[in-house]
Amino acid sequence: MSSIEDKFSKLGAEFAPGQEVRQNVDSLSVNIDKIPGTPVDFSHGDIDAHEPIPGTKDAFNQGVELGGAQAYTEYRGSLDIREDLAAKLTDFSGWRMEADKNLLITPGTQGALFLAMGALVSRGDKVAIVEPDYFANRKLVHFFDGELVPVQLNYFDTNKEAGLDLNELETAFKNGVKTFLFSNPNNPTGVIYSQDEIKKIAALAEKYGVSVIIDELYSRQLFDERDYAHLIADKNINSENVITIIGPSKTESLSGYRLGVAFGSRTIIERMEKLQAIVSLRASGYNQAVLKLWFNEPSGWMKNRIESHQAIRDDLVKVLNEADGFKVRPTEAGSYLFPEIPAIKVPLGDFVKALRVQAGVTVTPGTEFGPGFENSFRVNFSQNHQAAVDAMKRIIQVVEALRK
Amino acid sequence: MSSIEDKFSKLGAEFAPGQEVRQNVDSLSVNIDKIPGTPVDFSHGDIDAHEPIPGTKDAFNQGVELGGAQAYTEYRGSLDIREDLAAKLTDFSGWRMEADKNLLITPGTQGALFLAMGALVSRGDKVAIVEPDYFANRKLVHFFDGELVPVQLNYFDTNKEAGLDLNELETAFKNGVKTFLFSNPNNPTGVIYSQDEIKKIAALAEKYGVSVIIDELYSRQLFDERDYAHLIADKNINSENVITIIGPSKTESLSGYRLGVAFGSRTIIERMEKLQAIVSLRASGYNQAVLKLWFNEPSGWMKNRIESHQAIRDDLVKVLNEADGFKVRPTEAGSYLFPEIPAIKVPLGDFVKALRVQAGVTVTPGTEFGPGFENSFRVNFSQNHQAAVDAMKRIIQVVEALRK
Repeated sequence: MSSIEDKFSKLGAEFAPGQEVRQNVDSLSVNIDKIPGTPVDFSHGDIDAHEPIPGTKDAFNQGVELGGAQAYTEYRGSLDIREDLAAKLTDFSGWRMEADKNLLITPGTQGALFLAMGALVSRGDKVAIVEPDYFANRKLVHFFDGELVPVQLNYFDTNKEAGLDLNELETAFKNGVKTFLFSNPNNPTGVIYSQDEIKKIAALAEKYGVSVIIDELYSRQLFDERDYAHLIADKNINSENVITIIGPSKTESLSGYRLGVAFGSRTIIERMEKLQAIVSLRASGYNQAVLKLWFNEPSGWMKNRIESHQAIRDDLVKVLNEADGFKVRPTEAGSYLFPEIPAIKVPLGDFVKALRVQAGVTVTPGTEFGPGFENSFRVNFSQNHQAAVDAMKRIIQVVEALRK
Repeated sequence: MSSIEDKFSKLGAEFAPGQEVRQNVDSLSVNIDKIPGTPVDFSHGDIDAHEPIPGTKDAFNQGVELGGAQAYTEYRGSLDIREDLAAKLTDFSGWRMEADKNLLITPGTQGALFLAMGALVSRGDKVAIVEPDYFANRKLVHFFDGELVPVQLNYFDTNKEAGLDLNELETAFKNGVKTFLFSNPNNPTGVIYSQDEIKKIAALAEKYGVSVIIDELYSRQLFDERDYAHLIADKNINSENVITIIGPSKTESLSGYRLGVAFGSRTIIERMEKLQAIVSLRASGYNQAVLKLWFNEPSGWMKNRIESHQAIRDDLVKVLNEADGFKVRPTEAGSYLFPEIPAIKVPLGDFVKALRVQAGVTVTPGTEFGPGFENSFRVNFSQNHQAAVDAMKRIIQVVEALRK
């Protein structure tokens, strides 16, 4: 196998969220009866059930009215919009940024992640990745020919912090890790790193000169009025070594516009812009105009969104806790749950396919988020409330039917 | 310098079209008087002077109305829209493609180029690049750690074909080139490869097993009723080794929507989709809906667009031919001219900066398109007709003022 064939063999996307339609299910290895019910696709949020920020269509059309000036922005995005964003994100993160130096608009947060990794990782570089964490993180390390150094998140061992193994992180840093990439809240578990964990990560990164890319995509949707600490604002770390990634695709349901933002290190932002010039030029010009509504939602809108999701979480956790042999840590922020199931007779991939075909429920297998999660699956519960609860009951039924 | 610093030093974007605002012009080394006139930015087309296909806003809004189904398409794009595109592009190119296997929707043609190169080029691979050709092509080779093998386009030596040095191309292929990337019509010169040149390129690629990425971005805007041959439809080449790239950003003025299409080899399209999954997920879902209008413009719309651009070309070529010491080959397709200027007293970069600051005219220096073009500049003449002619006269005035 050539090196490029090998590389692409590691980028399999069959189980990636949204790609399930490409799975080969001609011959299902698992024999279970059909279970009727409203189909639910837990692989991503349902923006028809939880609609985009009101006014997005108008904001987009205003962008179109601006014509060429909005179609052809600088690669890093329209200066007007960056100025607005810099003020709002300074307020949100507690870290003072300059619109012209510390901020870049990207095609979705996925775009920001790719650019940040491309700006920092070259062949042979060691990159620390949390397990479990967002499935694309590991693929990015492979694509840039980095060396993946895993660090465990012991999310079932505590409910006071995320559970990162800080000793393992320090060992990794000591052994030459150059870049640390992680999400907070963690995807797939929905747990938040405590103030204390963030402080320690900052101190370790500073001590060993490690660059940190932190994905804060779901950091606005905090449940139970929890605290949230932004790493870049921590005084123990030099912010020139940090890139924070955030965007309006999740809580705000604007995924269809493909908008993301990276903020932090001026040097890394400059590299990211150079890379964006050859990757996609810029986030769609007209779409950028929609960012004016972000962090500027109608009064009460965010509060309602958080409350409705917290209510769904509560019901799903209740159903899971009542089932036999399931284990779940309640989401602290965002819309993910990552339950562990009891032992079943078939491999996880077969279970997931059967679930989709026979019970109309799409979930993402735990193995997408790291090795060793063969008994876990992720759901994005930003769905119709009742449909989500019913679908979780069907998941439990299928597990029951397949138990060892 | 670390390898990654070195890599990014080769990705300079200061003179890239649209980035001129980031140039340092505090102290201009060139002393010329201000020349008044309507500012013209020749670095890209003016979509306010030549508006997008009518109905794009409605098509976009219809996409938004579809909600989640349109926001979350497969990574390769909505199947509905791919089916429509496959029929239209089969018709256009003469090559029969299947919507589900041979086609991918990307964030702009830049996105398609990046994915195609990422799917084919790995460290040390030899890549043949035409000189001059689109400025990002060389940067992509550097980014993927390929080895650039230049092939000359002798565009001033003929007006019956593009002027590619086919002996040099064969030598390059013989010496191990794995991928050949070029644009047709050529960017920056606007010349078209003849049927005979395309046949020979196809035969050479087939003989030496070279993969070809062909950028046909401007292939709908043909002047003087010229013929155009699509490489992928040539019977001398195995289409599994070809990727064709095209999109509605130029002639159709839809750049603000960031839409592109790659079609061809099933294997390469599959890799490109895997890569898109970690680069940007997908082209913005709602934006994809706009593609329904492409190749489906109102009756007479394309004819008018071509005629109005041909008329601008004619006037600019006339002005250039009347000036002393300028040399230009008239555009055969697309909106670019790549004139050569007489010897001047200052480096090209200083000339270009002075032109922008003192005469309100932005052009792209020839050196962006390959080494050895220190006496050339590119204009995109998709501008207000009179403003473009006046601006070209100011360019000539500045050259006169700086002549050796």
